[in-house]
Amino acid sequence: MIQLLANTRSKEYPIYLSGGALEESGDLWRSLGRGGKVVIITDSNVAGICLSQVEDSFRAAGVEVDNIVVDAGEGAKSISQASQLYSRLFEMDTRRCDTVCALGGGVVGDLAGFVASTYMRGIGLIQIPTTLLSQVDSSIGGKVGINIEEAKNYVGSFYQPDIVITDPNLLRTLPPEQLSEGLAEVVKYTLLYGEDFFEALEVSYTRFQGLDMAFVEPVIRRCIEYKLAVVSEDERDRGRRAVLNLGHSVGHGIEAAGRYKAYSHGQAVALGLLAALRLSYEVLQLDPEYRDRLRVLLDALGLPVRLEGVDAGEVLSAMASDKKADDTSANMVLLRELGEPVINCDVSATQLEYAVNSLMAVEQGR
Amino acid sequence: MIQLLANTRSKEYPIYLSGGALEESGDLWRSLGRGGKVVIITDSNVAGICLSQVEDSFRAAGVEVDNIVVDAGEGAKSISQASQLYSRLFEMDTRRCDTVCALGGGVVGDLAGFVASTYMRGIGLIQIPTTLLSQVDSSIGGKVGINIEEAKNYVGSFYQPDIVITDPNLLRTLPPEQLSEGLAEVVKYTLLYGEDFFEALEVSYTRFQGLDMAFVEPVIRRCIEYKLAVVSEDERDRGRRAVLNLGHSVGHGIEAAGRYKAYSHGQAVALGLLAALRLSYEVLQLDPEYRDRLRVLLDALGLPVRLEGVDAGEVLSAMASDKKADDTSANMVLLRELGEPVINCDVSATQLEYAVNSLMAVEQGR
Repeated sequence: MIQLLANTRSKEYPIYLSGGALEESGDLWRSLGRGGKVVIITDSNVAGICLSQVEDSFRAAGVEVDNIVVDAGEGAKSISQASQLYSRLFEMDTRRCDTVCALGGGVVGDLAGFVASTYMRGIGLIQIPTTLLSQVDSSIGGKVGINIEEAKNYVGSFYQPDIVITDPNLLRTLPPEQLSEGLAEVVKYTLLYGEDFFEALEVSYTRFQGLDMAFVEPVIRRCIEYKLAVVSEDERDRGRRAVLNLGHSVGHGIEAAGRYKAYSHGQAVALGLLAALRLSYEVLQLDPEYRDRLRVLLDALGLPVRLEGVDAGEVLSAMASDKKADDTSANMVLLRELGEPVINCDVSATQLEYAVNSLMAVEQGR
Repeated sequence: MIQLLANTRSKEYPIYLSGGALEESGDLWRSLGRGGKVVIITDSNVAGICLSQVEDSFRAAGVEVDNIVVDAGEGAKSISQASQLYSRLFEMDTRRCDTVCALGGGVVGDLAGFVASTYMRGIGLIQIPTTLLSQVDSSIGGKVGINIEEAKNYVGSFYQPDIVITDPNLLRTLPPEQLSEGLAEVVKYTLLYGEDFFEALEVSYTRFQGLDMAFVEPVIRRCIEYKLAVVSEDERDRGRRAVLNLGHSVGHGIEAAGRYKAYSHGQAVALGLLAALRLSYEVLQLDPEYRDRLRVLLDALGLPVRLEGVDAGEVLSAMASDKKADDTSANMVLLRELGEPVINCDVSATQLEYAVNSLMAVEQGR
């Protein structure tokens, strides 16, 4: 069992990573020495796959456990769903010494994490991420939140869990699209981490797709370690944490322009990474060959490499309204080299337009 | 201008206390060197009294300012009201670098503070408390929150403001009941602080009622300083902060049993303090004379000293269901001496019943 330690300003907590960790979740939790009961919040998809297994594990460890199942899908990240969860927790007589366990992907982790952060001004939180995206990214770092009707993730907290239990065996339960989606974030980490990591994935991506755990586990570990290092330095997202947005500015624009239907988050990030590498070439002289290699890799991973069915102009206007969310207009993350991200890069409107437009072209080399 | 410094684990921030501070709020805020605009959230009562004054002060200091007015009353502390505020802030294009200013009493401070703590995972927060209760108590310490339909204050955060601006001149705008209500909390602080402070209020309470600022201002200051000392030691309410609940266990029971209509919070706390002093005599041998003196003082302050129109049995059952909120059953704060609070005191059901029942009797001496 791999144990990593998250060390943020607000809290220190362990992250357990291992095939089979799920069955040990009760013991892992018990070993922290917390009392109280555990209320598992999960969605209707995940409930069918592993809820009873997790409940059994907690019960076997002598922990009182209960569950709440919400509808699967982004719609659950709403104020009304959060409101229902508060009421359910109250009905269950949940107290300050009790703990919410978020069992699921990014949506469940964000929703249940936010509810845990605000119910009685914050109760315990266990994250058991069940998708690749949540295992390498959203379960780590304490960003939790819900959507308002007008915009995604506009309500939330920074709230670190007490423990994260990551079981890569759960990836076997994912449909291929969801694995691909998570791989987009993995690719992002390889670019942020450096040449070696990128190349390792380039060479052995089929081992990941085949879920060869001897390859998958260390890859997930490296992603987590990278994120932990960033978050420990900048928990509240005031500076360096912005590197994690590589590919996400254009990505969010694509998601929004496609009304969150045309492209999944991971698919949009894949295209966003391509745009970011084009801009990195123009603004920071990153070797353009990386963009070609990235395109080949994304394509092999089943991710889109061409923007289709969504208008580039709409992507740009969605980005413009998204940008309001920050007080800086030059907020793109680019790469000087692989492993050398630069935040707050000054990108002109023309450069951005060109980069987004070029996603629509069938690329031939550079 | 008195400047106190709040020094909590999560944040350090100034509290300005002075008659006339309101007119200087713009400059005081400017002096912190923050950018961004300020969105004042206030209620329909307070808006008529001092909203334009505060807005003018911010504008004169060169700060962009906007406002949102909510309906006055506890009903505003709802999830649906919070949800509307998120949408309004979004419409106003409020960004991470901007700040919410809570201008009002406890309800506005709790509601606007909670919204500030969760909008975009937390934006700036100015507290300008306009009632005595919020000046001496709720604006200090970072507890913000809203109600769920089933229970009060069940959703919230610990979120410290960036600045608190307290202007005792605002007390002149309060109806006498609201001044009395706040005085119940002031009395609580005198009991927690010690004999001298209690006696000072006993002797000079008419100076407070007459709003003689040479007396009022130092009293408010001492209350704030006491709370700051407690909160700096125990921001997250895991231990010592519980002393601030003196009189509040029984008080909450009375409020709930009276359906939040028969008694205001301050009135209920007054009765709760009487019950706490009776129990302090029984459990910790506090001199029973203090209870008699307290009764005389509360009566003189226009606060109830006898429980009427609410059934003692209902108070006890409301307390029993309230107690579920904590994992300890012995969670009453009592006094060994004035100035010597003891948390987690073991109070038997019989003792509690007796203390609550005795609130219904017309007391003659002890």
